[in-house]
Amino acid sequence: MKLGFIGAGKVGSAMAILLKQAGYEIAGVASRSQTSAQKLALRLGVSVFTPKELSYKSDVLFITTSDDAIASVAADLARQKAIRLGQIMVHMSGAHTSSLLSPCAEVGAVILSVHPIQSFASIDQAIALIPGSYFSIEGDEGGYDFAQEIVKKLKGKHFILKSNSKVLYHAAASIASNYLVGLLSVTQELLDTAGVPNDVGLQAFLPLIEGTLENVRKLGITGALTGPISRGDISTVSKHLEAMKDLPQILDVYKTLGLVTVEVALKKGTINEEQADMLRALLK
Amino acid sequence: MKLGFIGAGKVGSAMAILLKQAGYEIAGVASRSQTSAQKLALRLGVSVFTPKELSYKSDVLFITTSDDAIASVAADLARQKAIRLGQIMVHMSGAHTSSLLSPCAEVGAVILSVHPIQSFASIDQAIALIPGSYFSIEGDEGGYDFAQEIVKKLKGKHFILKSNSKVLYHAAASIASNYLVGLLSVTQELLDTAGVPNDVGLQAFLPLIEGTLENVRKLGITGALTGPISRGDISTVSKHLEAMKDLPQILDVYKTLGLVTVEVALKKGTINEEQADMLRALLK
Repeated sequence: MKLGFIGAGKVGSAMAILLKQAGYEIAGVASRSQTSAQKLALRLGVSVFTPKELSYKSDVLFITTSDDAIASVAADLARQKAIRLGQIMVHMSGAHTSSLLSPCAEVGAVILSVHPIQSFASIDQAIALIPGSYFSIEGDEGGYDFAQEIVKKLKGKHFILKSNSKVLYHAAASIASNYLVGLLSVTQELLDTAGVPNDVGLQAFLPLIEGTLENVRKLGITGALTGPISRGDISTVSKHLEAMKDLPQILDVYKTLGLVTVEVALKKGTINEEQADMLRALLK
Repeated sequence: MKLGFIGAGKVGSAMAILLKQAGYEIAGVASRSQTSAQKLALRLGVSVFTPKELSYKSDVLFITTSDDAIASVAADLARQKAIRLGQIMVHMSGAHTSSLLSPCAEVGAVILSVHPIQSFASIDQAIALIPGSYFSIEGDEGGYDFAQEIVKKLKGKHFILKSNSKVLYHAAASIASNYLVGLLSVTQELLDTAGVPNDVGLQAFLPLIEGTLENVRKLGITGALTGPISRGDISTVSKHLEAMKDLPQILDVYKTLGLVTVEVALKKGTINEEQADMLRALLK
């Protein structure tokens, strides 16, 4: 089975390199950027082609361009009659379903979106992080076997996602990754305001965050909750709110996430309905 | 130097055990709960005393009771004239300054709050996590040397915190730890709604969170941001908002943390002011 890659960015490059290592034959590379195409082709020991040429040479075509180019690349290939019956087409965007590839499905391709649940800062980091990561698989059932096979070869794990669930799933991923970064920026801003030395701030709080994740892993989300809301400590929460009164944006974050955390504490059973109501009143 | 511990909970027990391992002499243990006092005393090879007796035997007294008992334990000791000039008194609460111990300061004690920036689920986990953690030190300057010495012996790191900064600092710790748990509960709820199998949900997203933290460690907070807000991808953010419209509490979290994340993206330089304004309008 020959795999072609259109798009030589972080995820496409890492996937091509890892799948080659896993024993797949790489048919070649195409990219709008000749520089990154050449770079990846060199690393793989293959040639650079146009998307149309590459499609002829590939049993499976990965469209790993930026999200906003996937649909037009797929439509172009279908228009150029470069797609054949049973050819597998894969994109790896978390935000979109396989329907971005539907012009190819109309001419007989099996279409899939296969999304690694990870945040990649570079090609080499993607190569390091993909094994052990989970992948969601969405699209034509006829492609599930292939998708599951590559995930297995990449030493990843998979689950099948319904097409109409992909947006919520992607919102969840954005919250878990991007909003964690947002949460850390709030933490940093509070520490700056508190006069904690800048070089200490984040370093000092990363072990806390890792310890908390360790607790989540061992005890589950509910079991891992500690702190003033978990104890129903109204007085500490009031003091926090008072101390942040000149930081309105951070105050909003504190309140909205606080209300969610009250529900977690209730589920944990460390506060009762009455305490929950008092905390809710404070945080509204 | 003999150390006494009043309160045999997670942090107090872990500190006593680690400080004994580090070569300090432990004078004894006191606790409202005889069971936990006996348990800790047995583990340390020392005896259980009343707080007053223990104070007489100790050069340094750790009051590691629950937060809401610290002040009354300190006041009782001062009233009982169990405190002597130059005796060091330490509590380890993150929420309070050393002023909880001021009745003892008034009779000559040196008072400190020394707070490990960690979230402990059990005594043994606290023992495992304390080395490598940061501690904030707040209180009488005369106690700084001792506080720095014990942190060093525990293989931790420290910084000095001004008393009037402790509330903001504690709010930052609550956000970094407890609200991370809140964020994960939001993620889990979205995944449940998206029909992702329950046993997969969190497992699948922990590698993403760890990958993101790894990026933060390497690239800093701003450099680690990825995702739709970082790209100024208005269309994806709109789709997220639409998909969450029946989950009002989660929508509030998405919006408030989204607004913070827009500022991070601006600082990163991946969006311009115009894109930021469009995202802000969407998230308000």
